[in-house]
Amino acid sequence: MSNLIEYEAASDEVRAVYDDIRTTRQTEYINNFWKALAHHPPTLKRTWETLKDIMTTPGELDPLTKELIYIAVSVTNSCDYCIASHTAAARNKGMSDQQHGELLAIIALANTTNRLANGYRIPVDEQFNT
Amino acid sequence: MSNLIEYEAASDEVRAVYDDIRTTRQTEYINNFWKALAHHPPTLKRTWETLKDIMTTPGELDPLTKELIYIAVSVTNSCDYCIASHTAAARNKGMSDQQHGELLAIIALANTTNRLANGYRIPVDEQFNT
Amino acid sequence: MSNLIEYEAASDEVRAVYDDIRTTRQTEYINNFWKALAHHPPTLKRTWETLKDIMTTPGELDPLTKELIYIAVSVTNSCDYCIASHTAAARNKGMSDQQHGELLAIIALANTTNRLANGYRIPVDEQFNT
Amino acid sequence: MSNLIEYEAASDEVRAVYDDIRTTRQTEYINNFWKALAHHPPTLKRTWETLKDIMTTPGELDPLTKELIYIAVSVTNSCDYCIASHTAAARNKGMSDQQHGELLAIIALANTTNRLANGYRIPVDEQFNT
Amino acid sequence: MSNLIEYEAASDEVRAVYDDIRTTRQTEYINNFWKALAHHPPTLKRTWETLKDIMTTPGELDPLTKELIYIAVSVTNSCDYCIASHTAAARNKGMSDQQHGELLAIIALANTTNRLANGYRIPVDEQFNT
Amino acid sequence: MSNLIEYEAASDEVRAVYDDIRTTRQTEYINNFWKALAHHPPTLKRTWETLKDIMTTPGELDPLTKELIYIAVSVTNSCDYCIASHTAAARNKGMSDQQHGELLAIIALANTTNRLANGYRIPVDEQFNT
Repeated sequence: MSNLIEYEAASDEVRAVYDDIRTTRQTEYINNFWKALAHHPPTLKRTWETLKDIMTTPGELDPLTKELIYIAVSVTNSCDYCIASHTAAARNKGMSDQQHGELLAIIALANTTNRLANGYRIPVDEQFNT
Repeated sequence: MSNLIEYEAASDEVRAVYDDIRTTRQTEYINNFWKALAHHPPTLKRTWETLKDIMTTPGELDPLTKELIYIAVSVTNSCDYCIASHTAAARNKGMSDQQHGELLAIIALANTTNRLANGYRIPVDEQFNT
Repeated sequence: MSNLIEYEAASDEVRAVYDDIRTTRQTEYINNFWKALAHHPPTLKRTWETLKDIMTTPGELDPLTKELIYIAVSVTNSCDYCIASHTAAARNKGMSDQQHGELLAIIALANTTNRLANGYRIPVDEQFNT
Repeated sequence: MSNLIEYEAASDEVRAVYDDIRTTRQTEYINNFWKALAHHPPTLKRTWETLKDIMTTPGELDPLTKELIYIAVSVTNSCDYCIASHTAAARNKGMSDQQHGELLAIIALANTTNRLANGYRIPVDEQFNT
Repeated sequence: MSNLIEYEAASDEVRAVYDDIRTTRQTEYINNFWKALAHHPPTLKRTWETLKDIMTTPGELDPLTKELIYIAVSVTNSCDYCIASHTAAARNKGMSDQQHGELLAIIALANTTNRLANGYRIPVDEQFNT
Repeated sequence: MSNLIEYEAASDEVRAVYDDIRTTRQTEYINNFWKALAHHPPTLKRTWETLKDIMTTPGELDPLTKELIYIAVSVTNSCDYCIASHTAAARNKGMSDQQHGELLAIIALANTTNRLANGYRIPVDEQFNT
């Protein structure tokens, strides 16, 4: 397991990112992901800024939809940390038990049809290529 | 490549599924996926009924959101057929270029943070386990 | 695409492997996989010997079962070359359309339940750990 | 981790599935997978019925072979829950240590050749496309 | 397939990235990857800047080693585009046939042992956790 | 979890491999991976000999570079055991914190661009096919 770098032990460069996380999320809590990335400050800074830009900038997808997409990828990649953290984030943004159930049903279905399409080596329909 | 079973060459069992696809989707077109699955009628019938149930029954996720989740899984699994067909389906349900761009940006980001979480072997925060 | 190294153009080291493939499989045909691996003779030799050992040595799994397992992995990894070649191999060893259909149905199901188990973060039952 | 829904706390809809699992498997024990899926009864019911249909209906693949295929997918997807539960199921259906060893050797080999085929970008042989 | 956005048809925002790619790589050629990402300029800009930062800034890993790592990921993810483009990039940076062969042998081996470790559910040694 | 087979309980065939591991690595310590593989001696012997050949024979890639490639695959496959053991091995061969950070940044980036290339269905440039 990675050691986690706490605020008190962090360099100025790392603290600046931690401060921005706290301000952006309006919470004192910094989750383990960032405390591990702090071992390589350029990765910490780049990843946070990319995530902040993609996940918090208002766009054409609403914040809950973004979390559902995030969970779909994380489940398919078997990333337990990301499943746990983004399921919590989705709940914070209002995901109901029923929505969670529908989400996992779609993920499960897509994983099934993905394999059937590959297993039967199905050619892409002409009309999907345009 | 799988041979595709056309309506004319199909058994009654397969035709019944094809008919339901046409009625449900209100189009004559049956895409290659179903024509390949027709080699094993129980899989054709089960897969179609599951997909119809999950993707077309009104629930708490809207139809476009469901397609975005489907694409997220298909991209992460590198399933070209499913990326092509569900990107087309999402466009039919109103996905704009901008939404498509945001979707792929989230998928790309999640794939990045999934690997960082695993690579640093980051322990799940206590509060995400409750 | 890799260039393929034909028998006539091959070094003695590569030819020795090609000869063993022909003898073991009782066919003149050498498929592209080996002709590409021939770019790195140690990998060609090691991979062939491992495959010959595992797939052709009589053991407690019969030759067709071995091919079904091979296809299950290849479909799950989205390896089109291996799906194509091992589906052909399974047919040569007697796989029927019905068996192929059952195989793909199991692969599809397992991919679904794998994701549900991860998505719900289900703890392993005590009794499965012993 | 998901909370698990015990029989006593379950709705009638969920109990009906639990009862069918007990009858079909001839055991009182219901494993955690189903107790977690019970959070979304339609997914519980659909998944159980699909699994019962595919895994327990007599077909052209015997029950042990089906479990071996299931394990091959689960190992390739890194699904620890499913590896644990289906390895236990395979042992219950008679899998020997030797068969387990051969199974894992094939899975390992297929994962190797899948990557070599992709890494060298090997074109599919004409004869595998027919 | 995505349409590709050529320089002549590109917006000023996209052209600015194309110009930086040309300057950084000292070539007129812009490969298809960037011409497809140009459909979503924020993704184009962010991805290029991240890639330029990670792959071209002098660090403690030399440029060829970086490409070998990139190929290892791309092969394991079955991303044909990335295998093709980064194999070409590695050759430009001096990768020999022998190095390519060793690289693929290691990738193949790691994919094998990854699956064996998961398949046998091997507990991590105490000493690897510190 | 697999039981681990200790030296004292091992057969002569297994002990011979353990002895070679100890001699080759110049340490008494045998890590859990091998003690689990010992359940199937042919897999133990074959895997060790392949690994010894690929990872310890002097070639055109240096020992640390080989470990970095191994980690890239293991992270992408979400194999926690292999991430832990090969990160330890890389540190033993001199990997600095800074190199580890750069390695994970490249892995994360490649996982991002792999998905973008597939998601946009980008055609391979002509010049990468030669």
